[in-house]
Amino acid sequence: MPCLRLLFSAMTSPNIAISYSRAERPRILEELKDFIRFPSVSAQSRHAGDVRRCADWLATHLRRVGLKQTAVTPTQRHPIVYAESRQIAERPTVLVYGHYDVQPPDPLGEWRSPPFHPVVRGANLHGRGACDDEGQLFTHVKAIEAYLETSGSLPVNVKCLFEGEEEIGSPNLPEFLAGNRHKLRADVAVMSDMPIVAPNQPAVTYAMRGALSVELEVQGPKRDLHSGIFGGAVHNPLQALCELLASLHDRNGRIAIPGFYDSVRDWSERERAYMAAVGPDDAKILRNAGASTSWGELGYSAYERTTIRPALAVNGIVGGYQGEGAKAVIPRRAVAKLNFRLVPDQTAEEIERLFRTHVARITPSTVRATVRALVAANPALVDRSHPVIRAAVLAYHRSFGAEPVFLRSGGTIPVVNMLQEALDVPVVLMGFALPDDRMHAPNEKFHLPNFFNGIKTSIWFLSEVTSRLRPRKRLPRRSYATDSRVETQA
Amino acid sequence: MPCLRLLFSAMTSPNIAISYSRAERPRILEELKDFIRFPSVSAQSRHAGDVRRCADWLATHLRRVGLKQTAVTPTQRHPIVYAESRQIAERPTVLVYGHYDVQPPDPLGEWRSPPFHPVVRGANLHGRGACDDEGQLFTHVKAIEAYLETSGSLPVNVKCLFEGEEEIGSPNLPEFLAGNRHKLRADVAVMSDMPIVAPNQPAVTYAMRGALSVELEVQGPKRDLHSGIFGGAVHNPLQALCELLASLHDRNGRIAIPGFYDSVRDWSERERAYMAAVGPDDAKILRNAGASTSWGELGYSAYERTTIRPALAVNGIVGGYQGEGAKAVIPRRAVAKLNFRLVPDQTAEEIERLFRTHVARITPSTVRATVRALVAANPALVDRSHPVIRAAVLAYHRSFGAEPVFLRSGGTIPVVNMLQEALDVPVVLMGFALPDDRMHAPNEKFHLPNFFNGIKTSIWFLSEVTSRLRPRKRLPRRSYATDSRVETQA
Repeated sequence: MPCLRLLFSAMTSPNIAISYSRAERPRILEELKDFIRFPSVSAQSRHAGDVRRCADWLATHLRRVGLKQTAVTPTQRHPIVYAESRQIAERPTVLVYGHYDVQPPDPLGEWRSPPFHPVVRGANLHGRGACDDEGQLFTHVKAIEAYLETSGSLPVNVKCLFEGEEEIGSPNLPEFLAGNRHKLRADVAVMSDMPIVAPNQPAVTYAMRGALSVELEVQGPKRDLHSGIFGGAVHNPLQALCELLASLHDRNGRIAIPGFYDSVRDWSERERAYMAAVGPDDAKILRNAGASTSWGELGYSAYERTTIRPALAVNGIVGGYQGEGAKAVIPRRAVAKLNFRLVPDQTAEEIERLFRTHVARITPSTVRATVRALVAANPALVDRSHPVIRAAVLAYHRSFGAEPVFLRSGGTIPVVNMLQEALDVPVVLMGFALPDDRMHAPNEKFHLPNFFNGIKTSIWFLSEVTSRLRPRKRLPRRSYATDSRVETQA
Repeated sequence: MPCLRLLFSAMTSPNIAISYSRAERPRILEELKDFIRFPSVSAQSRHAGDVRRCADWLATHLRRVGLKQTAVTPTQRHPIVYAESRQIAERPTVLVYGHYDVQPPDPLGEWRSPPFHPVVRGANLHGRGACDDEGQLFTHVKAIEAYLETSGSLPVNVKCLFEGEEEIGSPNLPEFLAGNRHKLRADVAVMSDMPIVAPNQPAVTYAMRGALSVELEVQGPKRDLHSGIFGGAVHNPLQALCELLASLHDRNGRIAIPGFYDSVRDWSERERAYMAAVGPDDAKILRNAGASTSWGELGYSAYERTTIRPALAVNGIVGGYQGEGAKAVIPRRAVAKLNFRLVPDQTAEEIERLFRTHVARITPSTVRATVRALVAANPALVDRSHPVIRAAVLAYHRSFGAEPVFLRSGGTIPVVNMLQEALDVPVVLMGFALPDDRMHAPNEKFHLPNFFNGIKTSIWFLSEVTSRLRPRKRLPRRSYATDSRVETQA
């Protein structure tokens, strides 16, 4: 029924929706501030109530926007918010994924304004979650609203899946996806949870690193000791931990765990040349990092080191006295939080095994070491040749006035793999954040022109998808081939 | 006037005072609990009010005990409490030093009962300050009380000097000592702030290590970074800090700072043999530490490593995410709290200079490092041949039923040096704590039989001093020779 689809398309004008959303900017901004005010910190159990209240607020908001089947589904930890438009069989279906949970705001003392009291300074909205991911998620909600308010319908079917556990590795999403495969059936998934290049240079992300977060605990004496009375007699667990951590990189900035690089894929010169042409150069990455000196694996650019090469970061150390002044103590234990970033074809499982073996081998007999895995996600690749990627390219072009480049991200969104595998859909990674928006850091912000351009991009994307995709009749059985075609399109 | 002194001695009977203090044990214990209840944590400015209230309580208590001239003298940080008995020219004067401030109770979660709610479990009183130093200080107060309540006078003149800054290195004591040299004039100083060997094996401490506490801060990027997006591009300050710290010890457990051992004194075989004969063996020290494996400088016993050899402990690391779960962050800075223990003839000044030079040389160009000195104190030695040491030996023997051994301590009490230098008095280090009393650690306790034996020891000590010392007529000009005669008496 191609004529029927044309009719619907005519009824839902992107331009009218865009005009509407432009006129409503002050209200939309206030709503986003309400959203950000929830301290929906998924990692900290004391915020569980805040996470739930945020989910309830979001569900209520989706209902008010005009979506149906709104539901807040509890999981073992934080709930999943779901809503959908009226589903019309002839139209393709877009699954909008986002997350309403946020990173811990620590260190609190470094915020210029309180993290959960969003404020506009200049062209930026400041607050925890401003861009990661409440602000970026909200672009799609407001695009949907613009269509429904101006046309009473959407150019596509939409299904919204907003989780509250992304920042802790989406532990309960796989079960939800597995249990709701038919309900979540879609032709494409879209998510906005990553940076583009610059306010006037959008980007489609086509690769993300995997992640493995572990805690390494070193234990020594049974109790904390006076470092005067016992200093020199026993191996200090904090010192032993430093010695272990210092040994994990070699002089060339490579990770010194035997076998660690065995599965790392070598990319062709053509792919590396494309990356060098469109990706940020070392100076740009250092500027974004606020760093003066480069560091890392020899033989690779900073962009390569953060995308096609694995990395290991010490995220935190907890051990001994943390307060003001001095305390002469040898702590009985010390813990490091470590974060590996993985690249094709490493798997989190393989790296966890190698790390455990290595720690067991290098731990001296004077202390005991234990490893606990916290978060694990495999690297993800997106097929750049898929028609929906073309829809994203056109949508960006219309909203930002520039053709997007294809970028790899050093970050990890475990859900990309999960959606690809559980629902067998292509996943469009369409970000609106800027590299200096301080995701995960104090003074996180969202550049407001990007927020409003994001709404516009989403409006165009939903419109473009409908002319490029035919709705699938049923869920195919095999997994979506996400991997093999990545490089050929470079 | 020897006959007059005899008369006074007869009037003040140690045995009657001891009977009194035995009968009053339940009340004395309740008073000590009241004392411990103050969270007089000198290192943390939020407890400044608690420290002051503790000082006021102590001064009031000293007045009630019958001492005169009671005063709470403010300093730049925490006040000094002073009181004295009626001064009689013919008698020698004992300066009783102690400190009413305590270590921070961190980590709070590891206390079996709240640190500032003292409780008796078995033969022990548990609470922060139970032995370090409120409990040990209180032995002398209760000894003085016992004399005054039973005889109306003391066998010696006493002057009590109780400070509130010992746990932060006594920064304001030198000025107070310098400004009150005549008021504080004494023939001997005594302090009880150290362990003995066992409940039935007392000890006189004759050497203490010096201390130098520093903060080493490593700074990298201007702000915290997402360790996914930037992991592999910049040198993580927390990793760089670990690399610096790991390099500070060599494979033989020696401190790898050039010149560090240049001033370390070599002791004679005779001295080392005495130490081996009377000091704790490795197994004992490990048992006290609750550790299963020894570690440290090759070629020395654990007792030697903690007394005549210097040591370096990492007391704490603050950097990155400290909370529950994972946070993918590269922190912009990381700080280590380090504690050197120094031995004759090292000085804190020399070691601070060597450390600063070394850090400047080994810090890689990818980060910046700064060093801040927090606490500095030189090592101290006590002349074992002084008559007051004999008074301490006899007092211990009468109370504990055993001859004390002479011990070196790995700990540091900066005030030992300060008193020696400012007031030119011998300092008697007469401890009542046990090695497993968990000074500076969670679940600090005081073995109550030792507390009561401590009162008895102090009663005998005050009595013994009067028959062994003639009061000095005036303050001598030169500094007390504390050093040269130590070894010859071994």
